[in-house]
Amino acid sequence: MVPPRNLHRHALILAGGRGTRFWPRSRRAAAKQVLDLTGEGPLIELTVRRLRPLVDPSRIWVLTSRELRPAIVRLLRDVPPRQILAEPAGRNTAPAIGLAAKIMMDADPQAVMGVFPADHHIGRPAAFRRLAAAAWKEAARGRMVLLGIAPRWPETGYGYIEFPPDSLRPGSLEPAPVLRFREKPDLETAKRYVESGNYLWNAGIFFWPAALYLEHLRRCLPGTAERIESLPRFGSRAFFSKLEEIFPQCDNISVDYAVLEKTPGISGFAAGDIGWSDLGSFNAVYELLARDGAGNASRGELLALDARGNYADAPGKLVALVGVENLIVVDTPDALLVVRRDQAQRVGDVVKALEAKGRTDLL
Amino acid sequence: MVPPRNLHRHALILAGGRGTRFWPRSRRAAAKQVLDLTGEGPLIELTVRRLRPLVDPSRIWVLTSRELRPAIVRLLRDVPPRQILAEPAGRNTAPAIGLAAKIMMDADPQAVMGVFPADHHIGRPAAFRRLAAAAWKEAARGRMVLLGIAPRWPETGYGYIEFPPDSLRPGSLEPAPVLRFREKPDLETAKRYVESGNYLWNAGIFFWPAALYLEHLRRCLPGTAERIESLPRFGSRAFFSKLEEIFPQCDNISVDYAVLEKTPGISGFAAGDIGWSDLGSFNAVYELLARDGAGNASRGELLALDARGNYADAPGKLVALVGVENLIVVDTPDALLVVRRDQAQRVGDVVKALEAKGRTDLL
Repeated sequence: MVPPRNLHRHALILAGGRGTRFWPRSRRAAAKQVLDLTGEGPLIELTVRRLRPLVDPSRIWVLTSRELRPAIVRLLRDVPPRQILAEPAGRNTAPAIGLAAKIMMDADPQAVMGVFPADHHIGRPAAFRRLAAAAWKEAARGRMVLLGIAPRWPETGYGYIEFPPDSLRPGSLEPAPVLRFREKPDLETAKRYVESGNYLWNAGIFFWPAALYLEHLRRCLPGTAERIESLPRFGSRAFFSKLEEIFPQCDNISVDYAVLEKTPGISGFAAGDIGWSDLGSFNAVYELLARDGAGNASRGELLALDARGNYADAPGKLVALVGVENLIVVDTPDALLVVRRDQAQRVGDVVKALEAKGRTDLL
Repeated sequence: MVPPRNLHRHALILAGGRGTRFWPRSRRAAAKQVLDLTGEGPLIELTVRRLRPLVDPSRIWVLTSRELRPAIVRLLRDVPPRQILAEPAGRNTAPAIGLAAKIMMDADPQAVMGVFPADHHIGRPAAFRRLAAAAWKEAARGRMVLLGIAPRWPETGYGYIEFPPDSLRPGSLEPAPVLRFREKPDLETAKRYVESGNYLWNAGIFFWPAALYLEHLRRCLPGTAERIESLPRFGSRAFFSKLEEIFPQCDNISVDYAVLEKTPGISGFAAGDIGWSDLGSFNAVYELLARDGAGNASRGELLALDARGNYADAPGKLVALVGVENLIVVDTPDALLVVRRDQAQRVGDVVKALEAKGRTDLL
């Protein structure tokens, strides 16, 4: 029997990012979250599919940009298009979650929202759902809850969350109390975090009653909270014109900085082996894919002669690699990328260079 | 005043090769000689243009394969299509030159033929023509003549031609006597050749009276010579059917092995700085092209971030290179090649692998 409080689960999928590190595959109208990077399907579609056993599509909401909304509406056939909203301007996660909380409360004042990035990979969805269900349950008790990832290496590109010593048991369905949030560390600090066993990667996955989030927002970002709460009821004629007016005036700031770091009493669940990856670059995609005996992975046909550790993404085209190692090759009709795997993070710099050149045709 | 013997200059352009080291740019119906590899034009067109001041197109003959003839007829608008012949089967250079000698003699019994590969690059055509004119003049005296290239490095991929010590003055319009032909040497031997100063690279450029070549062919390859001389007059109805019959029966052998190595009294001209390259691989093309400050060359638009010494050939597409060095990247609609520059010679192995897989669609 489904406990009644489960009926109040609502999901917010945050799909506003650009994912420039996936250029030339990603473009303004086809950002990372709508791409099929792993061959399993578009990332946002996988995100919805992963949540479906827990949340009916009528309670799944998506916030994205104007440019991406058409692609997302096409992809998410189960989610009512009116629940896929374009933000009038990108204002980072604190206002976006506030807007979603307000909309969810119009539909269900008891809504307990889960917040999920649209563009992460989770290899073990059932294990993820067990944790998410426990986190939603905890949130339904009136708590601010997050789901963090037990770190597998001293990553310097992620934020970390600190817990009391010996409080974390990855995979446990019992929460632990968050001590504090830590920004991206240097390598030495990251190593210490990983070794200590009481830090999690911040994966941007959160659970809380919509009403409780708005309460914290009023405390932390009163101007933004006031603007959001000034919106007419979602679905009314006046809603969208008012949204156009107030949203660009909201603070441009993340939920982590604006709210969570200033909120005591947050609970955290530690995910262990759920196969999480933020797919931060083509190299992260390479890490997920099946490889041949020489460590080459490909989407499309690959012919490798003395070539090792490469990733070729050129659907519909044969890629021949001769004598090359640890490269990423990504082909599209108007642009071709070749980057060393250990520099895959720098692909965003290509996009910046193209922007500087005014090459909007390639962005 | 033009000396009368110049009126007997005829040129044979040998255009039968496949150039598999230029895959995926080169295909069976678009081999190296019809490609525009340097941006100046298709190689065979440049070869004709280079000879035009010396030889009227009515005296330029091309031997190629059935697959390539249509492309060559399209490219060489000045050369009468009937002078662009497809060999019924590839039989290497000794029979091909014999066939051309027979055809030229049908038109002009005093023909002095020059033999030129279709797919070499010569950066200083005027300097080349001065040498070729001198070589033709020497050949018109009833001599077998070659034009060799003063070696610039100890290349192990070329044949060499030995001359007496101190007999060579590169660029001189006086010939020197050939001592002997040397096959592709090992590196130590090649170094010795280069240091000695009395060796030239064999560039496959020859001059002789057509009648004299057929005389030598009768001596060296009597069966082949007999078959070729059994052909009816070129232009007659019976010519092509007889050619179909006899050509596949000819010996499959190069003019170097079959004739020149067994022929005393050959004269050689030494080309110095005529900008010769056999364009043996994409790396040789890279060496010819203009480069940016980081040593990158490209055809098509290139965006290089910390990338050095690369060559990108992707017309109509932007290529972004990040953190990579000394690569060759060649893009076509159905195949993409990435190879280390120092392994560009191995591109032919890709073609062999595709042949083994039966991927004729990509060949």
